Amino acid sequence: MKFVIIGGDAAGMSAASRAKRIDPQLDVVVLEATEDVSYSACGMPYNLADPQRDIEDLVVRRAEVFRDKNGIDLRTGHRVERIDPVSGTVSGHARHREPFEVSYDKLLIATGASAIRPNLPGFDLPGVMVLKSLEEGRRIKEFLGSREVRRVVIIGMGYIALEMAESLRALDVDVAMVKPRPIFLPWMPDEMSQVVLDELHAHDVRTYAGQGVTAIKKSNGGESRLKVVCDEETLDADMVLVAIGVTPNSAMAADAGLDLSIGDSIRVDRRMLSSQPDIFAAGDCADAFQVVDGQRTWIPLALRANRAGWAVADNVCGRPTELEGIAGTAVFKVFGLEVARTGLNIDEARASSFDPVGVVIKTRSRAHGHPGSTPIWNHMVGDRKSGRLLGMQMVGREGVAHRINAPAVALHNRMTVARFSQCDLAYAPPFGPTWDPTLTTANQLLKKL
Amino acid sequence: MKFVIIGGDAAGMSAASRAKRIDPQLDVVVLEATEDVSYSACGMPYNLADPQRDIEDLVVRRAEVFRDKNGIDLRTGHRVERIDPVSGTVSGHARHREPFEVSYDKLLIATGASAIRPNLPGFDLPGVMVLKSLEEGRRIKEFLGSREVRRVVIIGMGYIALEMAESLRALDVDVAMVKPRPIFLPWMPDEMSQVVLDELHAHDVRTYAGQGVTAIKKSNGGESRLKVVCDEETLDADMVLVAIGVTPNSAMAADAGLDLSIGDSIRVDRRMLSSQPDIFAAGDCADAFQVVDGQRTWIPLALRANRAGWAVADNVCGRPTELEGIAGTAVFKVFGLEVARTGLNIDEARASSFDPVGVVIKTRSRAHGHPGSTPIWNHMVGDRKSGRLLGMQMVGREGVAHRINAPAVALHNRMTVARFSQCDLAYAPPFGPTWDPTLTTANQLLKKL
Repeated sequence: MKFVIIGGDAAGMSAASRAKRIDPQLDVVVLEATEDVSYSACGMPYNLADPQRDIEDLVVRRAEVFRDKNGIDLRTGHRVERIDPVSGTVSGHARHREPFEVSYDKLLIATGASAIRPNLPGFDLPGVMVLKSLEEGRRIKEFLGSREVRRVVIIGMGYIALEMAESLRALDVDVAMVKPRPIFLPWMPDEMSQVVLDELHAHDVRTYAGQGVTAIKKSNGGESRLKVVCDEETLDADMVLVAIGVTPNSAMAADAGLDLSIGDSIRVDRRMLSSQPDIFAAGDCADAFQVVDGQRTWIPLALRANRAGWAVADNVCGRPTELEGIAGTAVFKVFGLEVARTGLNIDEARASSFDPVGVVIKTRSRAHGHPGSTPIWNHMVGDRKSGRLLGMQMVGREGVAHRINAPAVALHNRMTVARFSQCDLAYAPPFGPTWDPTLTTANQLLKKL
Repeated sequence: MKFVIIGGDAAGMSAASRAKRIDPQLDVVVLEATEDVSYSACGMPYNLADPQRDIEDLVVRRAEVFRDKNGIDLRTGHRVERIDPVSGTVSGHARHREPFEVSYDKLLIATGASAIRPNLPGFDLPGVMVLKSLEEGRRIKEFLGSREVRRVVIIGMGYIALEMAESLRALDVDVAMVKPRPIFLPWMPDEMSQVVLDELHAHDVRTYAGQGVTAIKKSNGGESRLKVVCDEETLDADMVLVAIGVTPNSAMAADAGLDLSIGDSIRVDRRMLSSQPDIFAAGDCADAFQVVDGQRTWIPLALRANRAGWAVADNVCGRPTELEGIAGTAVFKVFGLEVARTGLNIDEARASSFDPVGVVIKTRSRAHGHPGSTPIWNHMVGDRKSGRLLGMQMVGREGVAHRINAPAVALHNRMTVARFSQCDLAYAPPFGPTWDPTLTTANQLLKKL
């Protein structure tokens, strides 16, 4: 049997490696358009912050290792352009334009997602960057290393934008961020969003929320190379990072007749099977079920990509596997702050037919009287009808990143806020108050349920 | 109605405050033997480490506040000596030996636990200390502040002993630890126990495991005041800390005919009701149900004491409440290490009729290639028969204290290892690998189940 995988990053290589481990006789072919496989995309902002670190350090395992040690027929520089479900073949062109066609018994589409680059004047100028693939990371690193970059404008204020703001400030680059929506982090309660915004400003990042960018222009002389034309301001820049989100690479799947889902991601069932028999999809190109409401969602994150790749391998190798879904758990660092979320926010909960209510409370990161304690802001959402816990968000200088996992596990178990509040969580003075902040928040939310 | 509480620390004052909050008309009397109420006992080792900090900082709320703001009839210096369930009265002596008798409609025994002081020669000498109550903390702080203490011998290697070792080393005191059992942390796999032991030694704490202490003697001159006579060594000390565990203050309850439980703790049901109607017990003097196997256990910890106090108040005030139980989640700091556990270890699981199997694996605290990553040692126990997750232990320099809470929540939900391994936990390179260490450990354990 021949298992063909389009895309050699997290989902694709996870599936390939696990399939060969389960069934060493299986013919596993990976077709990867670029020369890069298996790298830590999420590590790029941190690598870019340090000129001493080689960006190639982000490669977790090299292509030769997959070929030689794992016995995977890994073909880099092979861009698949067409899937034909009728004949069971994929076809495209290799790096020197040689056409190729490969037949499959089982196919995995793991084409990932691409950074969105809007079709506006000047967004194709040199020095206008996006950051999703390792190749794009290399381009930024080379750009930063090869010329004087004193000013960067970041378009967008999502987590990649925020991580890159921190990275660039570490290089002592002047950073301005701009986006059309007036609210900084619209998925978060205002007072918590403000805490994150204050942290940006404390590190001299200028923010222009509520301003659309209409064009990027070359400078006519002056101190910078580029000018970012916004609704009200024009910002100087030596480099522009466009970080307004990603979109799933699903056009080829759609052309092959596969059903699409939220945000044009590829629709898959709990086995990762698409609407076509024998064709799976996994990773940033595929959708998922949100465990809180069982609804389809699209949240491209690394853990899910790895896990979905494994599930496909299991299903291909005759070990029927279903994935429960995702809670939408995520964390990111913004200078000295940890920002985390899991589950639904109040708007999402309302849209999903819950009757949600939320609280925002401030707790301490350490016990009463313990030195070094800092505030943690906590937001928890529950459902008035069922009493269920629906989601949580946290912001703080310490003790946030891993704390979010307890409510995440609670969401997988559809716990009520009352039952969650009874959980026996760890306590010692250097690490938190007697009542963990997640529990104190649950106790407060209970009063409103 | 009159609600009488014996003991004014965590469980007692939690119950008193909540009862008055729910029902301001309720007559709430707290009888506390000492002059101290509501203090952070767990914070004592950290306070003792810093001569600049007043030990009174550990008082969370003063007695006057409970009296004036909360309307609680709080009588300090009132030692209850007898409970008479037939007449519904408690009696004892107040601070100047005045006898008192108080009648109750509902009674809460929240007498806590006391440090064990073995009946061996010299354990009553000046400079031989225990640490459980604030008064004992004051005595140590005063002792350390008022004379030159260059050498301390700590008898015992539990978490109070370990926290005090760190505290005393911060004061540049020479520390030796001794205990009769040869294994350092017997509840933990050897390789992980060794990591903690190495950390002690790296901070110049000498350990003598496998040596019983037979006596403490006054020095005849020489450099130290005391000599701790062990099986093979005699250790010099200016102060000795006896930290071999605590025992519940349950003798009075037993005298009143109440059933006792594990370790002589007071047996309570899920409502915290003892074997006598109208008499509740909560806090370090009472037992609890372990959520993993539903069996009775006795693990005196602060969160449970607070929570149980609340539950008693709810039940007294006509809001029927049952507590699910405890997972035995705990964390402590040993110099640069965080050491955490939840649920059953492999021996406990075997004793509880499970068919347990465990794995120990080493993971990273941060993502591949992220600077500053340190190892995390993970131990997870599952049940071969049911596939259930039974417990987890972790040791590491960062990312352990709050990570343990995710498996703790899983235990409350009786999740299988397989389902836990599917949980959507947070990932960002500064905070962990793509697969959280708890998930990687679950994945490894699954291979053995």
